[in-house]
Amino acid sequence: MRALIISADNFEDSELLVPYYTLQEEGIEIDIASIKKGSIKGKHGYKVQANKSLKEVNPDEYDVLILPGGKAPETIRKEKTALEIAKKFFQRNKPVSAICHGPQILITAGLMKGRRSTCYKSVAGEMKEAGAIYEDKEVVVDGNLVTSRQPSDLPAFMRETLKMIKKS
Amino acid sequence: MRALIISADNFEDSELLVPYYTLQEEGIEIDIASIKKGSIKGKHGYKVQANKSLKEVNPDEYDVLILPGGKAPETIRKEKTALEIAKKFFQRNKPVSAICHGPQILITAGLMKGRRSTCYKSVAGEMKEAGAIYEDKEVVVDGNLVTSRQPSDLPAFMRETLKMIKKS
Repeated sequence: MRALIISADNFEDSELLVPYYTLQEEGIEIDIASIKKGSIKGKHGYKVQANKSLKEVNPDEYDVLILPGGKAPETIRKEKTALEIAKKFFQRNKPVSAICHGPQILITAGLMKGRRSTCYKSVAGEMKEAGAIYEDKEVVVDGNLVTSRQPSDLPAFMRETLKMIKKS
Repeated sequence: MRALIISADNFEDSELLVPYYTLQEEGIEIDIASIKKGSIKGKHGYKVQANKSLKEVNPDEYDVLILPGGKAPETIRKEKTALEIAKKFFQRNKPVSAICHGPQILITAGLMKGRRSTCYKSVAGEMKEAGAIYEDKEVVVDGNLVTSRQPSDLPAFMRETLKMIKKS
């Protein structure tokens, strides 16, 4: 089992660290990919090592894609390579879990049309415009897609993510 | 199932938040107790609500005690009520999980003599002086006691904590 987290500077610390530690606890290996390899820093000052650049990522090697929030998705959505990676996960119907601002990456990749989903409240407008069926719930599961709104939803987000990984 | 987290201002954010979210994910109810009720703030700026004061805690209502690190344990170890709570968990052989500086509370409570355990490296000296058998490992389990060194040990810390809760 292998998970891919895509993020960048100004990630929402708990939304990256909780999946990072919880998946490790489950014995799942994790790569963190960013624009380039090296340290990325969260809004609250936590640093994590991106051990892959986006260009080095082969989506076929992973069982799940995790997209934490914060301001990082605003940066990542401008990266064509990141959008291509997200599309590959959807094409193969592999689990994708996005929280808070994380779904912005999926919006830009054009993957949200007709999908039941949620996100941080300030992202709801663009999510609806992208054709998604927005729901204000702690977690929404639709096919391969798990979405949540904010850090306090992390328990539900991780519960459904783990359920989906184990099923897939 | 009910867990008790005891902490105070300047907690190590991830060491409180990861157990807090992971235990919720497992369907476990959690109380956070501090010197007084209300908001406590982590070293990295995360705020959580302590919904109990130490004085309001009845240790018999809980199945596990979690002691996160940071600078909070230095404050908590001065609170006699906190030490009495920790002693009750040990007397009843109920799970106690302490990480980083968290074991300082158990040292002051006089509970570490002869116990195999670990902690943050700067705490190792006083842990040994307290008669503990210190080991430099990501997690040490001895009877009812689970200890770890630092945030990067959280996956092992939570894995062993959950294993112990489910067994008890």
